[in-house]
Amino acid sequence: VILTVGPNPAIDRTAVVPRLALDAVIRPDRVIIQPGGKALNVARAARSLGAIVTTSGIVAGHAGHWLVEAAAAEGLDPRFVATDGETRTTYVVTDGRGRLLMVYEPSTPVPTVALDELVGLLSAELLPAASRVALAGSLPVGAGVDGFARLVEACHTAGRWCLLDTSGDGLLAGLLARPDVVKVTLDEGRGAGIAAGTARAIDVARALVERGAATAIVTDGERGAWASDGHSGWRVRVPRIATANPVGSGDAFTGGLLVAIEAGRGLEDALASAAAAGAANAETRAAGSVDPERHAQLLAEVSVERVAY
Amino acid sequence: VILTVGPNPAIDRTAVVPRLALDAVIRPDRVIIQPGGKALNVARAARSLGAIVTTSGIVAGHAGHWLVEAAAAEGLDPRFVATDGETRTTYVVTDGRGRLLMVYEPSTPVPTVALDELVGLLSAELLPAASRVALAGSLPVGAGVDGFARLVEACHTAGRWCLLDTSGDGLLAGLLARPDVVKVTLDEGRGAGIAAGTARAIDVARALVERGAATAIVTDGERGAWASDGHSGWRVRVPRIATANPVGSGDAFTGGLLVAIEAGRGLEDALASAAAAGAANAETRAAGSVDPERHAQLLAEVSVERVAY
Repeated sequence: VILTVGPNPAIDRTAVVPRLALDAVIRPDRVIIQPGGKALNVARAARSLGAIVTTSGIVAGHAGHWLVEAAAAEGLDPRFVATDGETRTTYVVTDGRGRLLMVYEPSTPVPTVALDELVGLLSAELLPAASRVALAGSLPVGAGVDGFARLVEACHTAGRWCLLDTSGDGLLAGLLARPDVVKVTLDEGRGAGIAAGTARAIDVARALVERGAATAIVTDGERGAWASDGHSGWRVRVPRIATANPVGSGDAFTGGLLVAIEAGRGLEDALASAAAAGAANAETRAAGSVDPERHAQLLAEVSVERVAY
Repeated sequence: VILTVGPNPAIDRTAVVPRLALDAVIRPDRVIIQPGGKALNVARAARSLGAIVTTSGIVAGHAGHWLVEAAAAEGLDPRFVATDGETRTTYVVTDGRGRLLMVYEPSTPVPTVALDELVGLLSAELLPAASRVALAGSLPVGAGVDGFARLVEACHTAGRWCLLDTSGDGLLAGLLARPDVVKVTLDEGRGAGIAAGTARAIDVARALVERGAATAIVTDGERGAWASDGHSGWRVRVPRIATANPVGSGDAFTGGLLVAIEAGRGLEDALASAAAAGAANAETRAAGSVDPERHAQLLAEVSVERVAY
């Protein structure tokens, strides 16, 4: 079982509109509503590549009830801690021709006890049943900046391998708990001050390892990804594709990585699988889903080479 | 009790952002979430002017549960029919300096039986307890184009005065049932083909009376409102105000009208009260609320004059 954990999920509403312009009433042709946030997207991608998944986190109110029901209907085995307030919405308006508006609402504040309950649920029930764990997304207000560090520690205490995908101060704090893999975008790595603001991706990866990650992966969109484990460095080149919607490709990347590692592949193979999953997602309009056939096709076009790190 | 009925309510989410631009991730400073749609807004405005209100309609799913709880917390006495699906969201992004994006999602489809149940709830419980009724908003997919006609008929059968505020084909069908007052914007009146597309507001009002309304009111934003009862015509001039947010002013107008008529005022006085309520709402950032003191001040600046109709 691949377990994904995100303390700050969202309901993703994507309004597909005929024409996107400001200062007008827009009447969408259709609205796609699905459970969102990085951990949900990673679970969706891993499941579409054949993995058995469980997803966890903190939900709130009626919106949280909807999210849990919808995640269950997708087969994502949601196991969430519930708290007061209402789970936030991420609102995306797209004209399907490249114009996009993305509104990332702030989280509903959660009491610190909600994170305590999440750690308890993971330790008592979910980690014993899990093989690989992805901790992904942002931290809700009130969870404490050390939220991801606590989740990494819970994984280690249970003897479980874990990947961390977050940003900012939560990333810096999480690194102190020494996750097995850290995965960030180049902007996130530079933004957290891990390395100089002009650092190359491979330098950001190396700096992440120096800060505590056993292995670090830094993605840079169409330019591919770089990785370091402190001894070796890798560059992953992704095939040229026609991008329809890049939203969720980073999470598909993580899902592809987890599925490959779970299948016993080494890091090089896992990086290739990850890159193919990210590209397969970007080709489709829906965020976070991966077509397994297309994944296999794209995998043949991905290259991974050693680089000086 | 003033009863407001809207078969197609929404959750209004207003994201207040530092800067509104396309093709960027926007992180709002805050998000205001409240029960919305015309009937909810009319109830809110009437209540803020001192009326006892009940509000009804059709809600769906978890979003519907939230809407009912939030309306109860506001003192709007929600009495809704529940159905499957999820109540839609209306998403507004504003930078507070005049730039605005408004996404009006389509309704969740409702089965015709939901409208049957609504008519039943009104006839059996809500209309006997009501004195004045506002039927307002749009019709959800599946309710049938004659939805408002059925609601007007239910009011008449119960011997209750009712106002209709809707648009398009639902308006044309509703007129056949002869509501006591029809209130539309000039654009809505022209758009429904009630009168020629270049018709003056007073001509649209007269045409609405010819089509079945006992009295018709046509609003035209800052230019004021016009009314006709088939014998006389009126023009309402509104004071110049600094508009902060015009959203909900039409509903505040209706709320002000209902409260005045409920208090036994004649049409001229009620029109003045309505215009003052609309202006008081436009001055404030929150949609649909009216400050009673400001309403009284603005009322002194409204003029109503007879015009040829």
